[in-house]
Amino acid sequence: MSTQFKQAEHKIPGPIEVADEVLYANAHPSMSHVSPEFIPVFGECIKMLRETLLTKAGQPFLIAGSGTLGWDQVASNLVEPGEEALVLHSGYFGDSFADCLEAYGAKVTQIKAPIGAAVTEAQIEKALKRSKYKVLTFTHVDTSTGVLSNAKMIAQVSRRVSPDTLIILDGVCAVASEEIRFDDWDIDVVISATQKGLGTPPGLSVVLASQYALNVLENRKTPVTSYYASWKRWLPIMKAYEFGSAAYFATPPVNLIYAFHVSLKSITHGGISLEERFHLHREASKRVKQAAFDLGLKQVPLDLDYSANGMTALYYPEGLDADDIIPLLMKKDIVIAGGLHKDIKGKYFRIGHMGLTAVDGSRGDLDKIIQGLQETIREAKAAKGVQ
Amino acid sequence: MSTQFKQAEHKIPGPIEVADEVLYANAHPSMSHVSPEFIPVFGECIKMLRETLLTKAGQPFLIAGSGTLGWDQVASNLVEPGEEALVLHSGYFGDSFADCLEAYGAKVTQIKAPIGAAVTEAQIEKALKRSKYKVLTFTHVDTSTGVLSNAKMIAQVSRRVSPDTLIILDGVCAVASEEIRFDDWDIDVVISATQKGLGTPPGLSVVLASQYALNVLENRKTPVTSYYASWKRWLPIMKAYEFGSAAYFATPPVNLIYAFHVSLKSITHGGISLEERFHLHREASKRVKQAAFDLGLKQVPLDLDYSANGMTALYYPEGLDADDIIPLLMKKDIVIAGGLHKDIKGKYFRIGHMGLTAVDGSRGDLDKIIQGLQETIREAKAAKGVQ
Repeated sequence: MSTQFKQAEHKIPGPIEVADEVLYANAHPSMSHVSPEFIPVFGECIKMLRETLLTKAGQPFLIAGSGTLGWDQVASNLVEPGEEALVLHSGYFGDSFADCLEAYGAKVTQIKAPIGAAVTEAQIEKALKRSKYKVLTFTHVDTSTGVLSNAKMIAQVSRRVSPDTLIILDGVCAVASEEIRFDDWDIDVVISATQKGLGTPPGLSVVLASQYALNVLENRKTPVTSYYASWKRWLPIMKAYEFGSAAYFATPPVNLIYAFHVSLKSITHGGISLEERFHLHREASKRVKQAAFDLGLKQVPLDLDYSANGMTALYYPEGLDADDIIPLLMKKDIVIAGGLHKDIKGKYFRIGHMGLTAVDGSRGDLDKIIQGLQETIREAKAAKGVQ
Repeated sequence: MSTQFKQAEHKIPGPIEVADEVLYANAHPSMSHVSPEFIPVFGECIKMLRETLLTKAGQPFLIAGSGTLGWDQVASNLVEPGEEALVLHSGYFGDSFADCLEAYGAKVTQIKAPIGAAVTEAQIEKALKRSKYKVLTFTHVDTSTGVLSNAKMIAQVSRRVSPDTLIILDGVCAVASEEIRFDDWDIDVVISATQKGLGTPPGLSVVLASQYALNVLENRKTPVTSYYASWKRWLPIMKAYEFGSAAYFATPPVNLIYAFHVSLKSITHGGISLEERFHLHREASKRVKQAAFDLGLKQVPLDLDYSANGMTALYYPEGLDADDIIPLLMKKDIVIAGGLHKDIKGKYFRIGHMGLTAVDGSRGDLDKIIQGLQETIREAKAAKGVQ
C-alpha cells in the first residue's frame, strides 16, 4: 500500500488530514466501474464499512453524493408522507435534518437542547410516550456545537419506550472517531460521509441500514419518494459488488472508492485496533481541551462528557473575535473553522483533531495545533491589550 | 498547470482517458470547502461550464453525485406531481429517465425509436400537438446504442409547436464531445457528469438550467419534491461561489472540483477552440467508423448522421461474440465495453473515443484502438474458422 507519492505542502486543515496513500489512490488511472479490477475494490469497501461500524448484518449503501444525501435516503425510504419523525436537536444539523424530512412529507417534532447541551433521556422518554414516531433521529456529533450525544442511551430509551421506532444516527462527524456499536446498541441507520473520521476526500454518501430498516422499507404502503436515493434501486447494486459482480444503476465515483478503500483498510486492518483508535481520539481530545482550559478558553459544550472527541468548539476569549485569531493561526499554517451555529456564529471557533491527527502522534499535528493556539491567544491579547 | 505526476501504467479504458494533470489535482491536499483558496476554483468551474455549453445566462449546478442525479433535479424541480412529460427514447437511458420522472409523480409518455434510430421530427410534432407537456426530454447520445439525436431540430420543433414546454437534453455522454449550443438552440436544461467528454473522474452531477427553467421553478404551485436535489437550496450556493464567497448547503466534492477545474481549463482555454474540439471528435469518429466498415462490422446506429462522435457501437461479426473479442482486445491493453441495451445486449460492443483520445493525436490512442481491432477480428475469425 506504500507509494512514493507525497501530497503538496499545505497547512493543517481544520476538518481532517488525508494520507498520501489515500490521495494517490484518488489519482488512480481511469477505470470502468464494471471492470474486473474495480469490482472487488468496491466489494471490500462494503465489507470494511461493516467492520468499522461493528455490525454483522447491517447493509451499507455507498452512493456518489455528500453526507446530506443520507438524510434524503432516510426521509424518502423510511418515512411515508404524513408519518411522524422525532428529531433530537443539539445544533445546526438537527434543523437541517428536520427540513429534509419535511421536504418528503414527514410531520416533524423537534426537541431542542440549549446551545452546548444534548437532549436528555427524560425528554426523549416523554416525547416517545406522547406520540408514535416512525423515526427518531439524532446528530451523534453536531459539528456546529461540538456536542456528542449519548448514542447508546438514546437507542436504549427509544427501543424500550417505542420498539418499532427506527433509530437514526447522523454520524457524519462521528464515524471512525467516536465509538459506534451498530449491533450492540441496536441502531437502525448510520448516516455518514468520507471526509471526516473516514479520512478520504468528500463526495461519497456512506450509509448503513439494519435489516429491520430494510424490512420497514419492504413493507411501505406508498412508493419510495426519490429515484436517486431509492434503496430499492441501490440494494441489488450493493449486493452484486459485494458478491463479486458488477451491476448498474448510476455510476459510482470510481476514484473516490479506490481512495476510500485505502483509508478503510488502514482503519480496519492497519496497525491499531478500532478500540485503540477510539482511545487515541479520546486522548487527543483531552489534550486539546485541557490546553484550551489552561488558556482560559470556554468550550461550547456545557459538559465534558457530552463533548466530541474528534473536534473542539471554543468561544473566543472576552474582547477578541475571529479577525483577531484566525489570521494569526493561518500564519502559523494552522487552519481552523469559524462558527456555524447561527445563534453564536461570531463568538466561537472549531478545531478538528480526528483521523491521522489523533491517531499518528509522530506527525506532531496536535503539538503544532496546541502550541499555535497558545502563541496566538498570547499575541492576540497583547495586540488588543486584553488581559 | 504542468506537473511531474504521471499516472500508473494502464490499459486504454473504454469510456475516457483522464490527463495526468487532472488526476494530480484529484490528489490535492485536503482543503476546506469554505477556504479562500477553494472558493475561486469552484467559482471558475461554474463560469467555464457556461463557456463549454455556449451560454451567457444559463445557471450551472455542480453537485456531488452521478449523472443520474441530474434526472432527479429535473423531475423534482421542474415537474409537479400529475404533470405530463414526453420522453424521446433512443435507447436504455430513455427508459430510466422515464422511471425517474414517474418516481416524482410525473405522467410519462414515451416515443420509442427502433433500435439504432432516433425519434423523428414528425413524431415529436404529432405528440406535442396531442397533449400539453411540461417537459420534453431526450438523450443527446444514448451510450447504449451510440445514437446521436439531433438536438437543434428537437429544440426547434418543440419551441415551435409547444413554446412553454421545457426542453431537457441529457448530455452525460455528449457534453464536450458533441456540439451543444445552449443559447442558440434554446435548450432549457443540460444534464451531464464529469467522467466522459469532460475528462474528469466520476462523482459530480453537472447541470445547466436556463433562466426560463428557473422561472418555471419559481412559479411552482407545490413544493419541490426533493431536498438534496432542490435547486432552491443550491442556487444561493452556486451564486455565492461564483461571486467569491462561500456558502453551505451540502459539502462539495472538493478534490473532484479541483480536478474538474483543470480539465475545464484545458477545454475552454487550452490550445484548441471548442469548434476545433468538436471537429476533432468528428474526425476521430470517422476514422473508427471507417475502419469498422472496412472490417465488415455493422454499426448499431442505422444512419451515420445519427451516430455519436465520441463513441462507436458495433455488432460482433456473424459467428463471433463477446468472449471471442473482448479478452483478445484486453491482451492488447485495449478496454472496450460490452452491450448495454437489453434487447441486443450480447450482440454488440462499444468503443469510447472522446476527450484526450480524440483531441490529442500524439497519444496514438486511435491508432492503437484501430490496429488492435483489426488484429483482433482477424485472430478471432481464424480461431473460430469464421470467414
